[in-house]
Amino acid sequence: MRLGPGDDAAILRLGDRAECVVTTDMLNDGIDFRLGIDSPGRIAHKALGANLSDLAAMGARPLGVVVAVVLPRAGAGQLARQLLEGMLPLAERFQAPIAGGDTNIWDGPLAISITAIGEVTRDGPLLRSGAQAGDRILVTGAFGGSILGRQFEFEPRVTEALRLNANYPIHAATDVSDGLSLDLSHICTESGVGAAIDLERIPIAPAAYQMNDDRTPLEHALGDGEDFELILAVPAAAAREIIRLQLVGVPITDIGEFVSGSGLRQQNAAGEVAPLAPRGFEHQAQA
Amino acid sequence: MRLGPGDDAAILRLGDRAECVVTTDMLNDGIDFRLGIDSPGRIAHKALGANLSDLAAMGARPLGVVVAVVLPRAGAGQLARQLLEGMLPLAERFQAPIAGGDTNIWDGPLAISITAIGEVTRDGPLLRSGAQAGDRILVTGAFGGSILGRQFEFEPRVTEALRLNANYPIHAATDVSDGLSLDLSHICTESGVGAAIDLERIPIAPAAYQMNDDRTPLEHALGDGEDFELILAVPAAAAREIIRLQLVGVPITDIGEFVSGSGLRQQNAAGEVAPLAPRGFEHQAQA
Repeated sequence: MRLGPGDDAAILRLGDRAECVVTTDMLNDGIDFRLGIDSPGRIAHKALGANLSDLAAMGARPLGVVVAVVLPRAGAGQLARQLLEGMLPLAERFQAPIAGGDTNIWDGPLAISITAIGEVTRDGPLLRSGAQAGDRILVTGAFGGSILGRQFEFEPRVTEALRLNANYPIHAATDVSDGLSLDLSHICTESGVGAAIDLERIPIAPAAYQMNDDRTPLEHALGDGEDFELILAVPAAAAREIIRLQLVGVPITDIGEFVSGSGLRQQNAAGEVAPLAPRGFEHQAQA
Repeated sequence: MRLGPGDDAAILRLGDRAECVVTTDMLNDGIDFRLGIDSPGRIAHKALGANLSDLAAMGARPLGVVVAVVLPRAGAGQLARQLLEGMLPLAERFQAPIAGGDTNIWDGPLAISITAIGEVTRDGPLLRSGAQAGDRILVTGAFGGSILGRQFEFEPRVTEALRLNANYPIHAATDVSDGLSLDLSHICTESGVGAAIDLERIPIAPAAYQMNDDRTPLEHALGDGEDFELILAVPAAAAREIIRLQLVGVPITDIGEFVSGSGLRQQNAAGEVAPLAPRGFEHQAQA
């Protein structure tokens, strides 16, 4: 094993010949979706997309996926077909065929567990641990309010990650599943650096403005999670070129800088600086 | 993808360099185990062992596993630790480190989904599709009554499969998860051959004699499932040597012959021949 738990995926070495990237994500009814409210097609898209997003965060090219499901007894056959059909568009678009699976039935709720396998390209894997002080913090897309629908409609940034990794010296990457600030703090921890975020530069998704609660759109962007966008650590010169050329389809934004030290800090246009507490989905149990 | 659904595992090709074997198995409370009756350690052993058994059936060397679980809320942290501890002995013994995972909590029952990744050795993978008429049917171990305890205590035949594949021209293999006769019929279907079983040669496990129902020990051996032993298709000369030398720790038995045609037939010592209906666990839903 070259890389174990703690990054977006593990890396396994095959003999001395090649490296294979493996990630697993399980989605559960009542937690990650609501069967009967969210359609099977949208649930399937989210389940497969979340795994492909982890491969993207590693800069890995998808090879295939295996799918294990346990279905509630009533209507199990139909649900199984709907879930499979819901995965096929993403699987085809990213050349990640469903290579195998395990289908079970019980009296409990629906659970879907997908494992995605990818290969490291000649450009090497993107780890969380490579960020250096002075690197710019780049992000794809926009953040916040994914619960209003984007959590079921997002496009995993596989193509973008491969293209950026092929063309630029990317030092580190992760995807935003738990929350922009929390996932950024994971890069900081693994890399032994801090991060200074320019608050006014955070790209805020339209949905973050539609959240009807006591948090601001910016707070939603920083903490909501399930955006499935990328955070990248990129040397300043390359970052400038990426921002200028915008080579990939999705907008890329520079939101700040990795700095020496640890932890996150926020700064506004007036130059005021304050600590920023990472917010997002904290995993409730660690095996 | 070199080999998709339908065998014991899928084979994914990495560039033109190497091949990676992937299999997934999900175990569910009330179906595959009973939490509160079966200990977490035994449940964990079964979950990991079933996946390693699939790698063994492919003749693949384990590289690592990823584990996704959803835990019932009460006592989730402790259960997670017990499950992890229960997997470690098998993971260490077969050099299949737990490379990653996903731990979730809900109000439903326990589900454990494991994906095992292996590599094809220089001896090539063992498929279900390679059996030829004239090949002998060899099996490891003994069959029947695994529900009395062996389903939680079995040893996946990883070492045996690697050693046999390295030393003999094995034509086809599978592991017995659904039932000896049913899994044998899978080899027949995939290989386009039939099989003639010598009933009196079937190795019957002691537990098959302790089953307190209206089925005979032989019927249990043919149909119970979850034995996690291997069925191998081996050319006659090599089969004789395997039986004579018994190179691997577990006994290997010749139980009959693959024949031209299709389906299973049984023959007894008196030479009487009759069709044999495959029995075992039929998967209830196919995605």
